[in-house]
Amino acid sequence: MNIHGRPTRTIWLAEDGAGVEVIDQTRLPHAVATVRLASLADAAEAIRSMIVRGAPLIGVTAAYGLALAMREDASEDGLRRAVETLAATRPTAVNLRWALDRMAAALLAPDVNDRVAAAYRMAATMADEDVATCRAIGEHGASLIREAHERTGRTVNVLTHCNAGWLATVDWGTALAPVYVAHARGVPVHVWVDETRPRNQGAALTAFELGQQGIGHTIVADNAGGHLMQHGQVDLCIVGSDRTTATGDVANKIGTYLKALAAHDNGVPFYAALPASTIDWTLSDGVREIPIEERSAREVTHMTGRAADGAIVTVEIAAPGSPAANPAFDVTPARLVTGLITERGIAPASRDGLRGLFGDRPA
Amino acid sequence: MNIHGRPTRTIWLAEDGAGVEVIDQTRLPHAVATVRLASLADAAEAIRSMIVRGAPLIGVTAAYGLALAMREDASEDGLRRAVETLAATRPTAVNLRWALDRMAAALLAPDVNDRVAAAYRMAATMADEDVATCRAIGEHGASLIREAHERTGRTVNVLTHCNAGWLATVDWGTALAPVYVAHARGVPVHVWVDETRPRNQGAALTAFELGQQGIGHTIVADNAGGHLMQHGQVDLCIVGSDRTTATGDVANKIGTYLKALAAHDNGVPFYAALPASTIDWTLSDGVREIPIEERSAREVTHMTGRAADGAIVTVEIAAPGSPAANPAFDVTPARLVTGLITERGIAPASRDGLRGLFGDRPA
Repeated sequence: MNIHGRPTRTIWLAEDGAGVEVIDQTRLPHAVATVRLASLADAAEAIRSMIVRGAPLIGVTAAYGLALAMREDASEDGLRRAVETLAATRPTAVNLRWALDRMAAALLAPDVNDRVAAAYRMAATMADEDVATCRAIGEHGASLIREAHERTGRTVNVLTHCNAGWLATVDWGTALAPVYVAHARGVPVHVWVDETRPRNQGAALTAFELGQQGIGHTIVADNAGGHLMQHGQVDLCIVGSDRTTATGDVANKIGTYLKALAAHDNGVPFYAALPASTIDWTLSDGVREIPIEERSAREVTHMTGRAADGAIVTVEIAAPGSPAANPAFDVTPARLVTGLITERGIAPASRDGLRGLFGDRPA
Repeated sequence: MNIHGRPTRTIWLAEDGAGVEVIDQTRLPHAVATVRLASLADAAEAIRSMIVRGAPLIGVTAAYGLALAMREDASEDGLRRAVETLAATRPTAVNLRWALDRMAAALLAPDVNDRVAAAYRMAATMADEDVATCRAIGEHGASLIREAHERTGRTVNVLTHCNAGWLATVDWGTALAPVYVAHARGVPVHVWVDETRPRNQGAALTAFELGQQGIGHTIVADNAGGHLMQHGQVDLCIVGSDRTTATGDVANKIGTYLKALAAHDNGVPFYAALPASTIDWTLSDGVREIPIEERSAREVTHMTGRAADGAIVTVEIAAPGSPAANPAFDVTPARLVTGLITERGIAPASRDGLRGLFGDRPA
């Protein structure tokens, strides 16, 4: 997708063929800046501090992180330690584990002297695959937007939560890929952007990327979605997923569950868009089984933005001394999910539904 | 309730017996400051700009606003114009209309020369009645907290949305009055405080007043409540109401409906606490009939807080140029409300339930 009209990915190999460059998502929307990752430690810190975020992009960054690690120590021990370091950065997104397992399996085979080159090749392949996967998700999901337009004859209002746009992936996005494909085909579409407290990924990232693509959108407080749905202002909801159980439960950014409840209560279709790599085939009860990351209270009590003079300032918004809690994800039970938009098509959110598309995967 | 250990109301007659003083709630929690209202225009602006907010406090401020107006022009025409000016300040809270109608009816009777004194007397009476009403709500609601404690044997976790504490009334509050009464009687209670975007009344006001009273509380993003309820961390929800239909639908701060859905989905009791003055006996379908105030987009895109150096700074958090929408209230249908905590007791959220307690009111 475009930044200032120039097609851009979120992660790419630096010109020297060794370093890895990423868009610094902690500085968006206030500044478009890139960060160079030169080591395993850099990659782990970029994931941990959310310079990169979004389940698919975390996976690809981890893959490149292993390539950087192989430059430092290509032994089996080095590989094992690097996998452990990267796996410990974020607990909820399962793509991270998936990417690391896939890289590790591929890297054990070659001789230690070939591991560095193999790691870079494999990471590049995974980045390209992510683009193709997201593009396919966009094709499948765009049909839902087109159908809504054909049914109503007017602009389709999509509500999304957090950022599952191209910034959460290498390109195209998951939840927003259908919007981009539909828009490119001339289907009129407008996006309600949940601001997504506490880190404001909606107001900061989703609004930024939709604006850059020239797609109509409106930021709302996370509190507003139920009211919009009660008044017929949402045609469908599309969100991403950080981990999906084999039974179709969806772990996604905190607050997703509340929107799914409101969609269900108002007969609004509610979809999660996800690559198969976010499916955890070992789990069947998301609410009980998916670990939920607890992040810093400071993300709730403090907020960063642009002051009137253009300076980037962090301010405390809460009552002094009041504690805060910050669970980063919640789980939407499959019963509230109309369907899962995957690279292979749209599946009912159920074990049978997922098996129908992914019969070749472990189940 | 206390500020820095000193019992305080939100509104009081100034020492000169003419001006009216209020706590400036736009400056909390960063500063405790008072504003003097010297005219009808001052009172209207204080309500409009949310220097005072909360349905009961808006009503009492409007009453004092009429007293100030009578000093300027005590004619019937002056009274009529003042009522119109104050009624136009905020559209959703019905206490405003109720207070103005009650004042106007009382002020038409006396001779023009007695209207000023009568207006001040009446406003003072309404302020005192609000305190007694809220105290009674606290008594009735505290029984729910005590019962929850007796059932579980542990600290009772109450979730609240926005600020329906003493700052929203003259004293005691509505949703928080049961917490204050239970706490005073030694029942262990902890409050989950929804930060309540976009104006952060939870993080700024509810957290502040609970902290000042020494009551355990934790601020959470509005997105977190569903997750907390899925994991058994909420024993009951108590919110306020800006307007309640004769059938028990509750208009309250945007996002209340989402919490009610989550409570319903998880078997958590969900109560609204309200004085009878917030009941609009003319309405029976809240979602269709209650006007919802649309406030400035800037409340969503900008945020004010304390910078590290103590300065109060407003920062823009959203992507530059992205529009925002800001509906300020939503309506929770009666079917999601376990009960209405009123000054006369706890009623089922239904026409019959309300009639059972308020058979003497128009229905």
